[in-house]
This record gives sequence, C-alpha cells and structure tokens, in this order.
Amino acid sequence: MRRALKDQQKGVKVKIAFIGLGNMGTPIARNLIKAGHTLTVYNRTRNRAEALQSAGAKIADTPAEAAANAEVLITMLADDGAVEAVLFAPGNAIEVLRAGAVHISLSTISVALSRRLTEAHREKRQHYVAATVFGRPDAAAAAKLFVVAAGAPEQIKLCQPLFDAIGQKTFVAGEDAPAANVIKLAGNFLLTATIEGLGEAFALVRKCGLDQNAFLEFLTGSLFTAPIYRNYGGMIAADKFEPVGFKLPLGMKDNRLLLQAAEEAAVPMPLASLVHDRFVAALAQGLGESDWAAIARISYQNAGLKDGE
Amino acid sequence: MRRALKDQQKGVKVKIAFIGLGNMGTPIARNLIKAGHTLTVYNRTRNRAEALQSAGAKIADTPAEAAANAEVLITMLADDGAVEAVLFAPGNAIEVLRAGAVHISLSTISVALSRRLTEAHREKRQHYVAATVFGRPDAAAAAKLFVVAAGAPEQIKLCQPLFDAIGQKTFVAGEDAPAANVIKLAGNFLLTATIEGLGEAFALVRKCGLDQNAFLEFLTGSLFTAPIYRNYGGMIAADKFEPVGFKLPLGMKDNRLLLQAAEEAAVPMPLASLVHDRFVAALAQGLGESDWAAIARISYQNAGLKDGE
Amino acid sequence: MRRALKDQQKGVKVKIAFIGLGNMGTPIARNLIKAGHTLTVYNRTRNRAEALQSAGAKIADTPAEAAANAEVLITMLADDGAVEAVLFAPGNAIEVLRAGAVHISLSTISVALSRRLTEAHREKRQHYVAATVFGRPDAAAAAKLFVVAAGAPEQIKLCQPLFDAIGQKTFVAGEDAPAANVIKLAGNFLLTATIEGLGEAFALVRKCGLDQNAFLEFLTGSLFTAPIYRNYGGMIAADKFEPVGFKLPLGMKDNRLLLQAAEEAAVPMPLASLVHDRFVAALAQGLGESDWAAIARISYQNAGLKDGE
Amino acid sequence: MRRALKDQQKGVKVKIAFIGLGNMGTPIARNLIKAGHTLTVYNRTRNRAEALQSAGAKIADTPAEAAANAEVLITMLADDGAVEAVLFAPGNAIEVLRAGAVHISLSTISVALSRRLTEAHREKRQHYVAATVFGRPDAAAAAKLFVVAAGAPEQIKLCQPLFDAIGQKTFVAGEDAPAANVIKLAGNFLLTATIEGLGEAFALVRKCGLDQNAFLEFLTGSLFTAPIYRNYGGMIAADKFEPVGFKLPLGMKDNRLLLQAAEEAAVPMPLASLVHDRFVAALAQGLGESDWAAIARISYQNAGLKDGE
Repeated sequence: MRRALKDQQKGVKVKIAFIGLGNMGTPIARNLIKAGHTLTVYNRTRNRAEALQSAGAKIADTPAEAAANAEVLITMLADDGAVEAVLFAPGNAIEVLRAGAVHISLSTISVALSRRLTEAHREKRQHYVAATVFGRPDAAAAAKLFVVAAGAPEQIKLCQPLFDAIGQKTFVAGEDAPAANVIKLAGNFLLTATIEGLGEAFALVRKCGLDQNAFLEFLTGSLFTAPIYRNYGGMIAADKFEPVGFKLPLGMKDNRLLLQAAEEAAVPMPLASLVHDRFVAALAQGLGESDWAAIARISYQNAGLKDGE
Repeated sequence: MRRALKDQQKGVKVKIAFIGLGNMGTPIARNLIKAGHTLTVYNRTRNRAEALQSAGAKIADTPAEAAANAEVLITMLADDGAVEAVLFAPGNAIEVLRAGAVHISLSTISVALSRRLTEAHREKRQHYVAATVFGRPDAAAAAKLFVVAAGAPEQIKLCQPLFDAIGQKTFVAGEDAPAANVIKLAGNFLLTATIEGLGEAFALVRKCGLDQNAFLEFLTGSLFTAPIYRNYGGMIAADKFEPVGFKLPLGMKDNRLLLQAAEEAAVPMPLASLVHDRFVAALAQGLGESDWAAIARISYQNAGLKDGE
Repeated sequence: MRRALKDQQKGVKVKIAFIGLGNMGTPIARNLIKAGHTLTVYNRTRNRAEALQSAGAKIADTPAEAAANAEVLITMLADDGAVEAVLFAPGNAIEVLRAGAVHISLSTISVALSRRLTEAHREKRQHYVAATVFGRPDAAAAAKLFVVAAGAPEQIKLCQPLFDAIGQKTFVAGEDAPAANVIKLAGNFLLTATIEGLGEAFALVRKCGLDQNAFLEFLTGSLFTAPIYRNYGGMIAADKFEPVGFKLPLGMKDNRLLLQAAEEAAVPMPLASLVHDRFVAALAQGLGESDWAAIARISYQNAGLKDGE
Repeated sequence: MRRALKDQQKGVKVKIAFIGLGNMGTPIARNLIKAGHTLTVYNRTRNRAEALQSAGAKIADTPAEAAANAEVLITMLADDGAVEAVLFAPGNAIEVLRAGAVHISLSTISVALSRRLTEAHREKRQHYVAATVFGRPDAAAAAKLFVVAAGAPEQIKLCQPLFDAIGQKTFVAGEDAPAANVIKLAGNFLLTATIEGLGEAFALVRKCGLDQNAFLEFLTGSLFTAPIYRNYGGMIAADKFEPVGFKLPLGMKDNRLLLQAAEEAAVPMPLASLVHDRFVAALAQGLGESDWAAIARISYQNAGLKDGE
C-alpha cells in the first residue's frame, strides 16, 4: 500500500473496502468518500449499503468481493462474531485480500481476537492496524472522532490520512495492535466508572431532598468540567435515558470484553465487576433499550427512589 | 450581623473569629485579612496563630475568647470531634457568641453534626451557614476555592463578600445547612470514583505492557479533559503519591462520613464501599502518609505489579 | 468473688446483678435463677423486670442499686450506648460495684467499648469477662447457648458454673476480653456470608425456573448440612422473613460493629461491605421489621423477581 | 436403552462408553466396572486408559470408536471445549451413537452447552441426562458422590443403577437437563461464599492477635458444623493450600460458568463477582497450583499479613 498512500498524501485516491455500515460505520464511510477515496462497501443488510451508492460507493455482494481489489480493508462491526465471519469464514476477506494490503479494524473487539488477527494477517503477508475510535454517531458524522491506533509504525503513518479524514486526533498506542483494543476497553471502563459514581451520588442527593439540578450545576461548574459529566450527569439527574447515545447491551458487551482482557492479564478490577452487576440488574429491570447510563437507575431503585420522585 | 455585613459590602470591616489554622485554614484566614476584615484567631497549637499575627490577626487563648465579640465565627477544623470541642465543650464558643451572629462552618463534618449545629444555633438565636469548600491548599492561597453554601438565603447573601474573598465561585445548595455537607461528601466521593477507576485502568494498561504515559496522554487529550484526570492520573501513572495534596487518612475520614450519611438516608453506595475497602487495605500496606490517590496501589498489588515495574 | 464462686461450685448461691431483660436477657436470667443464684434485676422498662419477680428475682430501681451488693454483674443490653449508660453514667454501676467483683458482659458490643471496659474495671480493681453468646431466644430458654468467653483465666474458671447454667458449651477465646467480641462479630459475619450466598443462589435457581424447594433439599442433604442452611435457606426459598428470629436492624448493627473492628485492625472485608450495602438497601425497601435474612430479597429484586413469583 | 437397563436392574451388564479419565473419571469408571458393567474407555492421554485395562475395560482409540456400540455414553471432561470436541468434532461421538442410547454428562459444563446437547441429542433421537456430581476424588473412589440428575424422568429412572454405583445419593432436579448444571454451579458458588467468608473472618481474627485454631474450634463446634467449614477452615487457619483437593483454576472456571449462566438469566450476583476478583488476584499472585481455598490468601495479603505471621 505504500505507493498508493504516499500518493494519496498528495491527494491520490485510495481503494478502500469498507465493511460494516451501522450507526458509526455509515458516517465514517461518508467522510472517507468526501476525502476523495474510492469505496467498495459491504453490509449484511444491503439497503444500508445502497444508501451510500449516491455518494459514490460501489456495492459488493460479499465481504470477499469488497476486499478483492482493495489497498485498504476497513471493518466497523458489532462484535467478535461479526468480525470473525467477515474475515475467517470460508472464502472470505482474508483469503482474497492482496499481500501488502492493510486491514484497519475500527471495531470494539476482544483483545484476543485482535491478537489472532495480528497473526493471521502476518501469515498472509498483509498488514493489520487496530484503530479504535471514541465518540458517538454525531462525532463520527462531524469527523470528530478520537482515534487510537496501534500497529507497525510505517503502516500507521501511511494510514494517517484516513484517520485524519474521520477523526480530530490520533493517538498512537504502540506497535502491538491489541494495545489499541486495550485502550478502547479501558477508556470505556472509565466512562462507566463515572456513570456509576454519578448514579450513586445522585441517589444520595435526591434521597436527602437536595435539588439534583443544582448539584449538577455545581459539579460541572467546579472540578468535574469534562463534558462527560454534563452528558451523563444530565441524563441521571433527569432520570431519563433516552435518546440513546450508546445502547445498554453494547456497553455491557464492552464491559464483558474488558473483564475478559483483565482476566487474561490477571488484573482484578472490582469496579468493573460492580459495573457488570449493574448491567445485569439493568437488563433484569427491562432497561435493554436505554442508554447505558441507565445503570444509574439501579442505584435509584436500591435506594427506594421511585421514578420521577 | 446584617448591619455589619451590609456595611462591609461597602467596604466596612467585619469582626471575625477564625478558629482552625491548618493547611487550609491559614491561607483562608490570610485572604480574609487581605480583604480588610478584622480577625481574632484561635488555634490549638498556638504557634500557627502567631504566624498570622504579623498579618494583623489578634490571637485568642480560647475559642470562647475569640468568639466573644465576633459578628462572624468561622471554623475550619479537622473533624467532628474538633468542631464539637470548640462549639459545645463547657464554656466554649456557642455559649458566648452573640445573638444574631453567624457561624460559618467550612469544615468537612458529618451531616449529622451539621444538623445538630443548625438546631443549637437556632436555640441561641444565632445563625448557621454550612459553607464547604473544594480545592487544595494552593487553591486556598490563591482564593480560588469553590464554595458550596447552604443556610438561610438572607444569611448567605450577607456572607457572600466573605466567600468572594476566599473563593472563585459560590454555589448555593439550599436553605437547609446540611445540604452543603452532603454535596461536599458527594463531590469527594466522585473524586474517589475517578481515582479508583484510574487505578484499575492503569493496572490493566501496565500489566498488558502498554506505555502508561501514552495512555495518560490519550485520556487527558480526548474525553477525560477535567484537570482531575491529569492530576490523579499523573500520580497513578508514575506510581508516586508524594507530594501529598490530600492525605490518605483524611480521604478515608470523608469516605466514612459519606457512608454514614448514605446509611442514614438509606442509600446503598457499593462503589463507596469498594473505596472504603481500598482505604483500609492502603492503611494495612503502610500508605497512611501518602496522598489519597495511593489507593491505586492496591490495584497494582492485587494485579501482581511490583513498584516501578 | 473467688470465695463465693468456689462455694457455688459446691452449690452455694451467687449474688448476681442482672441488667437488661430483653428477648435474650429474660430467659438467661431465668436459667440463672433456676440454677439457684440470687438475682437482683434491672430493666429500663420496669414491667419486664416484674415478670421475673414471681421466679424469685429482686427488682432494683437503678443499675447502681442492682450492682451495689453484687458478686457478679451481668449485662445483656442492646448496644454500646446502653452499656455505657449503665456503666459510666454519673452514679452508675461501675461506681458502686465492689472491688473483686466481676462484670460479665454478654452483650454484642464494639471491640473498642470492650477494651474500654477492660481498662475501667481494672482501675477499680474489679474484673471484666467478655462472654458473648450465640443462639436465638429459644436456645437461650433451653440453656443451649454457645458461650465465647475471654478474660483472666482464673475469672473464667470461676464464672464457668454460670456459663453452664445458660449454655451448652463454652469456648475460651483467650485472656484479652475483647477477643470474645471479635469472635462474636466474626461469627455473625459468617452467618451473613451464608445468607448472602443463599440469596444469590436462590435468585439464580428461581429465575432459571428450577424448584427452589428441591434445591434446598439438595443443599441440606449433601454438603450444606449445618442447620443454618436449613434455617436461612428455608426462609429464602419461601421468600418469607417472618417470624423474626433476629431483626434486620440488629443484624445491621452487628455488621457495623464488625466493619469498625476491621477498620481499626486495618483488615479490608469486601464481603462484609457487600452485606452492609444489602442491609442499607433492605431498609430502603422497608424491610426493617423482617428477619435479617430478608437481605436476600435485594437479590430477588435486582434479578427482577417479584414476590411470590 | 430401556431393555438393557431394565435387565441391568436385575443384574445384567450395560455397555458403557466412558470418556474422560481424569482424577474424577478414573475412580468413577472403576466403580462402574465393579458394579458389573462393560466399559469401553477413551482418554486423550492413552496411558490413563491403559491403567483401567487390567480392571477389565476395553480401550478405544477415538471417542467415536468408544461410542459406536454403547447403550450409555458417559462423559467426564474438563470443560466445554473438551465436551464439544468429543461430541461435535467431525466424525465424533454424536454421529455414531445409536438412536435410543443415552448420554450421561457428568462434567461441569456451561448451562448453554447443556442446552445445546439437549437439542443435539433430541435431533438424533438419542437421550441426554445431565448428572453433575459433588465430591472430591476420594469421595468418587468411595462411591460417595452426590449426584444431581436432570432429564426425562424415564431416562433418569433407567440410569439410577449407574448413579447408585458411583454415588451415595441422587437428587432429581427436574426434566430440563440444564437444571442439573445450574445446581452444580450454584452449589460450587455456595462453597466459594463459605471460603471467602472464612478468608475474611480469619484475616480479622489473625490481625487482632487471636488464636486461629481456637477460632476454628469454636466455629466447627457451634453453628458451623458442616464438614466444609472444617475442611476449608483448616486450610485457611493454617494458611496452607496443599494438598490440593480442587485446583484453583478449575474453581475459577466454575465461577466463570456461573457468572455466564447468571448473566444469561439476568441475575446479578455480586458475591460471585467478588469471588471472581479473588480468583484473578490469586492467579496474579502465582497461586495457580494451589487449592481454590487459596483465594483466602488475598484477604491475608490485603490486610498486610505475611505468610506464617
């Protein structure tokens, strides 16, 4: 890919196979098209692919068809299973991807699968870069994602123009691709630490009869100035977990991947275990369609607070 | 106090009894003197009072002597016991404070004691304002504290010039004085949620062989922009908990007060309980002289990480 | 007391002041009377004392009056506050108890208070034996309590006939009286570990659609043969926490004393913290009148199980 | 199988394929041979199969060869992966097992796999009975296991003589085979609840300077009479986790299966999560070769207790 991307840095188009057109994949793919690249897209549900046709994307009928002539394969899929199906199912992408091409995996997948992909691509003399992203669909649409990339430095350098097309900033996590997955999971874990903290704190504040909005004003106006406090604190103060930014079962999946990675590395993470228990309780309370911040409702319920109280 | 403070709003001096000249009390007292007020100070260890003499403070030999002619009594003491001794011991401050004077309690004390003070001052026809503060000694010296005040609106209004002299911003938490104490404890709890989250996340990142400073750069450069992440994340990444901003046993005291308040309000707070367990383990490991962020070391130890590894 | 008790070992009566005639104290006092001892009883609510009059007890109007001529003072009170009031309030028991007399404290009190009592009695040249008891009111009535005694070996030996009159077995925990309190708290903690384990296990079993009674039969018929499994497992399987053997707030008090003792000894006990959170949640759900095994209901609620489901 | 087993009830031999000859499988197989049945055995490491040859077992070279003519297929394997390999790998046992034969799965496997086996055998018109066992190798050798069986009542009835040959008591958990797996996991969870409780209690007792053996005597002589308290309490009091009854990583596997089953059923189990954290910490401390009761050492370490202190 070296030639192509070097040219691209001068404005030349890169041939990209883009697989996975969900809420995140679609705006990311649009931004790559806008930046002048040629996209062949594949999505299991074809109509999401068709929506990109007018923007100039070519549609493939299978992952392999998309990957066949690509210089870069980008995957943005829901979970390990989806990535495995695209890459490893008989006759699929890894079989047809040319030697020297690079696979950029944007998906939040397990550290173990990222390690397996590193090996599998190496055997095929392809390149693998894990590039996890932080930000919600609106950030993806605005090309404001934070990208955490790990892999061979040369490959990361060559991919940089693509990262620039989709994000506001790229962090390089090292040469070992799974590092980017660890950081993604650790970052999401820190968000859940904040959510759980806020849930318990607001339960106390509400039960003591204080005004929760005044408390929120205090927090965001003093030491807790990061937007995450306003974002999640606002939902929790209002006890309202719609509209959904990140669906609860997806957050639970990431928590599960984190606990797996931590177990493999022999790192006990009791706060992550507590968050796990919250997710399970939230599902049991029927909160599966809510934003993941709805785990705060378990704090409310266990404190005897009723909705709207 | 109405007359005096009204005058003061026009620049007239207020007669203040200031009790408690620790690391926070001393710079706060200095700022009040700078703002033109007359301070009679008392401290159990007299030499800390003498240090303020040159700045213009008068020294009292007992809390009662300090409080005797004050329009405003300010206490900034270590814990419930110290406040009780100053206010309620036979012949002490509450006995001699004049009717109409106001007691501003800056200390981090229990919600229960704050409630008791509310009652006790009401009986004496004195006023009571709980005004808890966020910020470390350097913020106190720079008059950059965040003040959370609760009490009768009229009293808070009259005290505002004093708050302005010591802090950068005042949040009013309502008419019920203990509300300011709840918010102080809930705010400190949210700091511990951040510290615990960072401790576990860095344990994972280190054990996976990633560069912890790169991880810190990522955090503070993306979603975790509040200074608390850089501050605590920096200590934890370096596994170095000196110099001490807030000593571990003091943080543990605040956690204890939080759990008591939560128990009284019947609010289970499992994350606060986890932090409690961390504090206890940290003491058992001899970390009593470290910054409270040293609870992160328990995450390191339980993951089998040695110092400096 | 040496002479008296030596005689008593030959059947001579001991003069006992017995303070605290609750659900446990009353049957214990009766058994001491039955064994031939002379009791002067005191209870804050006098009618509970009167109920023992027909059995031969003499009634005192104050703790001090009861203690005045006693060879042995026995206290069986609800908490630290009650013991402190009886012993340390001006003009109370410790003032009038004669040198050489022994105070046997049966109450579940804090390790700290037990240590203070050790000192206070030593100063008065009185003796102090902590003798905590395991068993419910029916066991007390049947003189089937388990007694854990700690104190000077000679004193314990002299008190043995009294322990034999109220219990089925005496364990000696050492010479340091507070040891008996630690063991009482640790034993009760192990009961809560069993209750919490059963609550979670039955929540799983119920939610999976299994028959909870069959599960209980399996447990008690295989590895979990101690009566505590049948007792608590039965309540939890039936989701019915009446009749009350040990009231939830009393169990919560003991959990609090345990956590205090553990904090003082710098021993983190995360399972005890979890149980604490359960107690708080149970109070928030209005379970304050139930048996302490009702903390299992929090497991049921968080799993989305409704009553009787 | 009906005919064969009916005959067997009168003493006729059953043709059994027995797969998995580990520490549990070997003594179980021996007891079946002793009871007069014909065993064809398979083990991945062939020499463990050869050890049974002299007792009369026939050796098969593959799982399929063993299963080919069996009336009953019994599997006693380490984990889901091993069971899947034996049953589902191309050309393996489920392909050759005759219609009407019954598969008795003794292994501790996931509830999900047990459900999948139920379906797979039904499709092949074979029968499936989950029969989990409680007890250690010595209990297996003595035919003293507790068996928890679930499946079609008729099949369980027919299998009863086999259960009688290996265990002291059979509990029937219902018609749905996975129920036996739930009960196995729930039972093992209750053991970990006991271990964790004992670990924390002994940490407190040791740190307070009490004699841990006296504490153990008290426990096992009063309310905690089940042998599990003496067994695990003895190891924990001695801080010695060899000889190994049940290896720590196996206990961790069962905890993982429990948490998965609980997650699927939407049942939060915070005590199970705590135990998970303990297992992870124990591995990080290099305790992977110890008995699973060694999680207690984490309680000791976090309390600052050194080995042998």
